[in-house]
Amino acid sequence: MQNHLFQLDSEGGLSLQQQIKQKLITAIGNGFYPPGSRMPSSRKLADQLDVARNTVVHVFAALVDEGYLESRERSGFFVCDAPAPATVAAPPRQDQHQLDWGRYLKRTPPQPLARSYPDNWHKYPYPFIDGQFDPSLFPTNPWRECSRLSLGVDAIHDWASDGANRDDPLLVEEIRTKVLPRRGIQANPEEILITVGSQQALYLLMRLLADESTLVAMEEPGFPGMRQLVQLMGSKLALVEVDQKGIEVDSIPRGADLVYVTPSHQVPTAVTLSMERRQALLAQAEAEDFLIIEDDYESESNFVSNPHPALKSLDGSGRVLYFSSFSKVLAPGLRLGYLVGPAPLIARARALRSQILRHPPTNNQRTLGLFLSLGHYDTMMRKLNAELSERWTELREALNHYLPTAVVTSRTVGGSSCWIQGPAELGSQELADEAAKRGILMEPVQRFFGDPRTPQNALRLGVSSIPTEQIRPGIAELATLFWALSDAPRQQLDQSTGQKLDAHTLKEHLANCEFLGRTVFGDPYRIRLYPDGTMEGWEGRRDERSDTGQWWLEGDRWYRQWQSWSYGEVAGFEVVLDHNRILWFRDGNLVDSAFFSRLG
Amino acid sequence: MQNHLFQLDSEGGLSLQQQIKQKLITAIGNGFYPPGSRMPSSRKLADQLDVARNTVVHVFAALVDEGYLESRERSGFFVCDAPAPATVAAPPRQDQHQLDWGRYLKRTPPQPLARSYPDNWHKYPYPFIDGQFDPSLFPTNPWRECSRLSLGVDAIHDWASDGANRDDPLLVEEIRTKVLPRRGIQANPEEILITVGSQQALYLLMRLLADESTLVAMEEPGFPGMRQLVQLMGSKLALVEVDQKGIEVDSIPRGADLVYVTPSHQVPTAVTLSMERRQALLAQAEAEDFLIIEDDYESESNFVSNPHPALKSLDGSGRVLYFSSFSKVLAPGLRLGYLVGPAPLIARARALRSQILRHPPTNNQRTLGLFLSLGHYDTMMRKLNAELSERWTELREALNHYLPTAVVTSRTVGGSSCWIQGPAELGSQELADEAAKRGILMEPVQRFFGDPRTPQNALRLGVSSIPTEQIRPGIAELATLFWALSDAPRQQLDQSTGQKLDAHTLKEHLANCEFLGRTVFGDPYRIRLYPDGTMEGWEGRRDERSDTGQWWLEGDRWYRQWQSWSYGEVAGFEVVLDHNRILWFRDGNLVDSAFFSRLG
Repeated sequence: MQNHLFQLDSEGGLSLQQQIKQKLITAIGNGFYPPGSRMPSSRKLADQLDVARNTVVHVFAALVDEGYLESRERSGFFVCDAPAPATVAAPPRQDQHQLDWGRYLKRTPPQPLARSYPDNWHKYPYPFIDGQFDPSLFPTNPWRECSRLSLGVDAIHDWASDGANRDDPLLVEEIRTKVLPRRGIQANPEEILITVGSQQALYLLMRLLADESTLVAMEEPGFPGMRQLVQLMGSKLALVEVDQKGIEVDSIPRGADLVYVTPSHQVPTAVTLSMERRQALLAQAEAEDFLIIEDDYESESNFVSNPHPALKSLDGSGRVLYFSSFSKVLAPGLRLGYLVGPAPLIARARALRSQILRHPPTNNQRTLGLFLSLGHYDTMMRKLNAELSERWTELREALNHYLPTAVVTSRTVGGSSCWIQGPAELGSQELADEAAKRGILMEPVQRFFGDPRTPQNALRLGVSSIPTEQIRPGIAELATLFWALSDAPRQQLDQSTGQKLDAHTLKEHLANCEFLGRTVFGDPYRIRLYPDGTMEGWEGRRDERSDTGQWWLEGDRWYRQWQSWSYGEVAGFEVVLDHNRILWFRDGNLVDSAFFSRLG
Repeated sequence: MQNHLFQLDSEGGLSLQQQIKQKLITAIGNGFYPPGSRMPSSRKLADQLDVARNTVVHVFAALVDEGYLESRERSGFFVCDAPAPATVAAPPRQDQHQLDWGRYLKRTPPQPLARSYPDNWHKYPYPFIDGQFDPSLFPTNPWRECSRLSLGVDAIHDWASDGANRDDPLLVEEIRTKVLPRRGIQANPEEILITVGSQQALYLLMRLLADESTLVAMEEPGFPGMRQLVQLMGSKLALVEVDQKGIEVDSIPRGADLVYVTPSHQVPTAVTLSMERRQALLAQAEAEDFLIIEDDYESESNFVSNPHPALKSLDGSGRVLYFSSFSKVLAPGLRLGYLVGPAPLIARARALRSQILRHPPTNNQRTLGLFLSLGHYDTMMRKLNAELSERWTELREALNHYLPTAVVTSRTVGGSSCWIQGPAELGSQELADEAAKRGILMEPVQRFFGDPRTPQNALRLGVSSIPTEQIRPGIAELATLFWALSDAPRQQLDQSTGQKLDAHTLKEHLANCEFLGRTVFGDPYRIRLYPDGTMEGWEGRRDERSDTGQWWLEGDRWYRQWQSWSYGEVAGFEVVLDHNRILWFRDGNLVDSAFFSRLG
């Protein structure tokens, strides 16, 4: 027992003294050392635990101070008679006959959807999941500093009191003046409510604005938590398709009362709602008299180009109810979010919040307020965006390199995840299950669909929890698995219909030519080969990215090496020309294809 | 502007460097120092702010590190071109035409009741209020220690992740093994849910168990927050009177579905539900098939005698749904509570909690779990109970001394507040208003009544936020005010009907006699006077408290001095004997009276 009691744990973050103290208190509390009994000597305990005797002496002294032990001269330490406040004498617990709870429950809330990846996801080498905490991005030292400041005597007095319905004025002001303006939103303090994460903002809105008579329209695929809330409120649900420009505004049914959207990066496809669609949505809200719920869960991770202004910032009539949180940029466990809307609605949401839980914990509000006011948020966002941008670019590169003919992805502008569609025959659940066995986690996407006729070939890859250097090997491994599992016959060189080029025809056709293709992200690319063995490449609608490289022939194969594209590695291909298309094969399998034309 | 910008505040708890940094970041952010502009020299800024130049140098260095400023050799510091992540260009905010929100809102939650005392209550010398934070009782150093431990790298990783629906296992285990057993409650982990304060526990229960068809019975007077939840759910409400033994169980209407009670110390009268009533309530729940909601908001501050076991601990069939929180014992601002019930109900409550806000913030859960496991809770509870016990005794003493004939209070066993009824004519709101002008805060109790025919003569005095040494002068001041405002004619010596005793008759009657009276708390007291000028006194149903003292005569007055009762002060009275009653007068006004009998 004693040995079992004192399993000291070097990983828990507690000092030896703290651990010993914790376990001794437990042992006293559960009667292992009964009141009045003599404790083992500090020497004996120290020997048993293999710690310095002084360590045990300090623990005993602390336990005397705190009223657990008393020291008797020359006799040692004894457990106090009443080491803990009186425990109530209660009859032993009877085996309860179970009530039939079905008779008492007025409603059964939907069971929250299980996560699509295991709890120990961080033990996997390739966790392509989204929205989880990445300790390497958490601003540990600044957060500690602000926590310490929030534990100053004056600060404690401020936050520890019952603040009734008020939020921390510092946090509200910082959100108002530093966070919202980056999304183009101007708001007064009475238009802002702090919430326990963004889920609470959404619950408050739904509880205020939706009942059995309400028609709620939302994106399909879309955020499953929203579908559950619609179900909880008993409202009617309309699913509206999403394309490369976001929700298809024209398809929103007449009579919709509430329209829920994720414009910044649509959940789960990560596409950004286009500016024209934004204007159209607002105009339609006005014409059809519906309200818009804007879920800006990711807010600022739109690092690739200038982000679009939030719908809320374009909203002339107060129809847009906006919410976001610090879960993605700081840590989900803190549960701090905010709701922005017209003052009369916010006042009602504040009243409802009070009935539900009074207010979000004020110590966390104060810590975050200090964090923002001391400029740590800006610094953290720069770091976070730089890191996510690097990872996202790496994922894009890897997908183009390893799976170019296999998948297409949604066109995204930044964000921390990538929505992928494989060949129609792909079973994404089977692929995910097999991938997990090889250390690769990715999210099958059935849960995002409200319509039971879910496509089986889509999946989502996230980069918010995987280090950059793991992305390439993860995708390489995934590609191997993908082809091994794929039922789709991969196009083979020996069944190809065009003309297989040999050393001679390769030189003839390729010496001065252009390839026009499309990346897995749907962006166009253009590559020019020159007679001197150099080449240039451009990618993107506005040639946003470019690179140069070398090409040459070895026997019947065409070789190329970019400066930075495709990891700057040498790669050789067999080449087939089929009318105006060029096809590249490696090991007899099709790798990529493009339109081909001669230059000059 | 610059001077305005740099109002440094010595009270905010931030260091000079932190304050200057905070304000410079604001000035850069709002364009006071535009991108590319040169900052004032550190020497100049230091002169203006009257701080050491080094302070400014350090701030500039930090701002360079964090990307706000850049240093150019021999030219000084310049604002970076993009000191903050890009702000979205948005059209200027238009004046929004207000929507008519009445058309969109499906429900209007009741406005939370305003507090009955001002926000700056802590500036008043005599704050007799209940349930507020008292910084002198907050365990600042242990809490800081546990916060620091919860910010260790491993600990952060644990709590910062999205824990889905799980609570911190450490906290659940500590509540299960250290907190609940003191209330006699044995529970398994799956019978416990952590909540954002006790309000969330109550909301979850009501949302699951109550709708328009539900009849909810609760105490009258009672917790106003519960009445508001009944209103929010649209349920029917039955008010059940409270007497000295707690809720009148026999008066609970047939057909009640839910019965809400505060057995430990009834809100607001502070009476404790008697053991017989507890058994009766449980038996009635079984017979009438209703569920019991047990709000144990104060849980363990039952310091005077052995506390009764919680209803939950006596519950054989799982009909009792129990909740409590750490708001009263630690700090309301932390918002940490817990709900205990049968596993099937807790599973539903967990699902609903997830729809409302996912889970309570996990950093606070971990900090509290560490706090409990390191034994700080026991220590704090001992200190808190000792302190509250001292204050409560002091209040009782003061009321007996200064207002014995004026008020009666509920019989309470410990607790942190006292329910007082004055003469029928008393206007408690007027008294509270006038008292506030003299620095005395107390709570008028209209808000606790559901029935509009509220008694106007009741009020509540709390001791959880007033230091012991302020209690006596506060009650002395209150007594003066009480008599000044009272419309009730105070009994005068010269209108008295009995026999006014003079020097001779005083000696004759009092030399060997006994007084039998009642304290303002309704407890009996007994005092014996002996011929040798000594006296003895006993108080309580079992003579729990006793004292000795001296008595003597000076002219036509009777004097007495206790060892400790009545502050051990000398007091002299005129005395009237009216059949078997003795009446004491001071300055012609009745002070107290008792039954009188001769001894031996």
